[in-house]
Amino acid sequence: MNFSEYTKKYVPKINNEIKLIWENKLNSTNNLFLKDYYAELRDYFLSGGKRLRPLLTIATFNAFNGKPDEKIIRPSIGLEFLHNASLIHDDIIDKDNLRRGKPTFHYRFREYHKKYNLKRMSDIDFGNSTGIIAGDTSFLTGLEAYLINDFTGELNLTAINFYKTAFIEIANGVLIEIDMVNQKNLTILDYINMVGLKTGALIEKAVLTGVNYTKTGSKFNNELSTYGKNLGIIFQIIDDILGTFGDEKTTGKPTDGDIREGKKTCLLITALNGLDDSKKNKLNSLIENSDMSDEDVIEVKELFREANAIDSCKDLANSYYQEAKSSLEHLKSEIKDFDSEFFENVLDFVIKRDF
Amino acid sequence: MNFSEYTKKYVPKINNEIKLIWENKLNSTNNLFLKDYYAELRDYFLSGGKRLRPLLTIATFNAFNGKPDEKIIRPSIGLEFLHNASLIHDDIIDKDNLRRGKPTFHYRFREYHKKYNLKRMSDIDFGNSTGIIAGDTSFLTGLEAYLINDFTGELNLTAINFYKTAFIEIANGVLIEIDMVNQKNLTILDYINMVGLKTGALIEKAVLTGVNYTKTGSKFNNELSTYGKNLGIIFQIIDDILGTFGDEKTTGKPTDGDIREGKKTCLLITALNGLDDSKKNKLNSLIENSDMSDEDVIEVKELFREANAIDSCKDLANSYYQEAKSSLEHLKSEIKDFDSEFFENVLDFVIKRDF
Repeated sequence: MNFSEYTKKYVPKINNEIKLIWENKLNSTNNLFLKDYYAELRDYFLSGGKRLRPLLTIATFNAFNGKPDEKIIRPSIGLEFLHNASLIHDDIIDKDNLRRGKPTFHYRFREYHKKYNLKRMSDIDFGNSTGIIAGDTSFLTGLEAYLINDFTGELNLTAINFYKTAFIEIANGVLIEIDMVNQKNLTILDYINMVGLKTGALIEKAVLTGVNYTKTGSKFNNELSTYGKNLGIIFQIIDDILGTFGDEKTTGKPTDGDIREGKKTCLLITALNGLDDSKKNKLNSLIENSDMSDEDVIEVKELFREANAIDSCKDLANSYYQEAKSSLEHLKSEIKDFDSEFFENVLDFVIKRDF
Repeated sequence: MNFSEYTKKYVPKINNEIKLIWENKLNSTNNLFLKDYYAELRDYFLSGGKRLRPLLTIATFNAFNGKPDEKIIRPSIGLEFLHNASLIHDDIIDKDNLRRGKPTFHYRFREYHKKYNLKRMSDIDFGNSTGIIAGDTSFLTGLEAYLINDFTGELNLTAINFYKTAFIEIANGVLIEIDMVNQKNLTILDYINMVGLKTGALIEKAVLTGVNYTKTGSKFNNELSTYGKNLGIIFQIIDDILGTFGDEKTTGKPTDGDIREGKKTCLLITALNGLDDSKKNKLNSLIENSDMSDEDVIEVKELFREANAIDSCKDLANSYYQEAKSSLEHLKSEIKDFDSEFFENVLDFVIKRDF
């Protein structure tokens, strides 16, 4: 099955499983505010998303199990809860009111506050407080994917260990990124290490969770880790390129955001390491200014172009693509009936996307 | 063994286990900011606390196991991580810089920002962001108590289910409390339901986690739940009384905080239900003012006294005390060698405390 067939077959089932978990919480309380809270969590979780992580868990399970089995759907949604939990908190940290054109969770409760004209707390504090608690609720509720399903306790404990480790690695990546804003002389390896944690760890764990529930065990975890982690790294490199040189209408994001934030993107690190000293100093002084003019932003982009930063980043993405491809090749020769189309599709989708 | 003997014997071992978990994280990274982050988490977790929850897990395990066994120490620390994780987030929500005289977690990183003169983010945003991520890290790291220990997978999964449920109940309690500020005509049962979730659930789960790891299984979970949940309810009622009529020097908290916040404490709900209509209206209008004068606060306290609110709340606490005592009595007759001194001590400590 290819990616679009997988999506068509499984996404409705994944969404239904997610819906059931929140509606179960909604129905187990008589408190009207709590009912609104769980309904909002349900709607937020169902408001889109490609379900890449559950799909990867399901496809990996099916490939190594020898035949598809729908009992994998329940545990496949765990990391999707973790992902959404961390998005809810990220949006509070970044003060974003919209994500992909839809209201963020804390912003929904800021609007709720206004709608009901609530007292005492300000609407901003009410939104942030509810959002912090909702992220926590989602982190803990995600465990239900492993507590109630058709697999043995030992397999579920291994999956919970992946769940825990995925978040610790994401947090490490996010903290390293926060700290990088204050660091100089970063290498491209510092960058790869950071995005491997921030974005790669979760995708890697989705794949490892899938194979964990089959008889294969951990035999191919090295290859699967490379495939999953590289998918995340490629995703982030392309994200960095699109964040500055993409089409705002397609990406939905302004192309000056990363530059104005002084974010240590692939483009910036590559450019700083590729330019001669005088231009490097110029770029550094532009980036260090927290109140850049439009002309400054244009000048930064010009320096990125001079350093061939886009091509260097694309080459970098391509090297991780080749490595992931070669891991897939190893797996193909090892596993009978290995339906590799899906895995190749995901890899191609991630490197070729323009949104 | 009594409470103070238990404390003397086990608290150093509990603290050591907590310390090991954070130092393991600290030692597994070369990033200097991450090292500071984990060192701060370690220091924050070790900066005090009676370790009531781990002690309850250990004592319950020992009582039902027939003999003490130190392998219970590792799983006993899980709910202490959960407790601290939720304190870290609570302090961000409540904008508290101090807890029991020591800096809160997000405040530590606000100071860190100043110390290193960091760029881009403000010190407040830096503290809150690091605090949100640190709470999340603690929620997930707490799972390590159940992932690496000397018990079977099935027992650990049951304990993880308690861990998950404890937080969902805490969150429900906290959200009901936030909503209560905007509600009128609350009964004392609404209050008990809220504090049973907010404060009772975690203590209840500590006791249930202890017995879970013994051969007794879930046979006495009803009595143990009553004991644990009531402990929490009593704790909160006394907390409400001390919050308004305690000695500021002993409690470390100003005695006008709850009143000015319009918090639906045991005192307020009891008073509103005990006063005649004209005084009830007076009390309501005083409480609804979000900018109370010192005279208003004194008048509220006077109305609490007129309604005999302190005595009513003490009577309420006492009824939950008697119920918990009677659960303990049932357990005593069922279990040989049941060392009930510890459990009675905790109950007496909670109802008699003045801080």
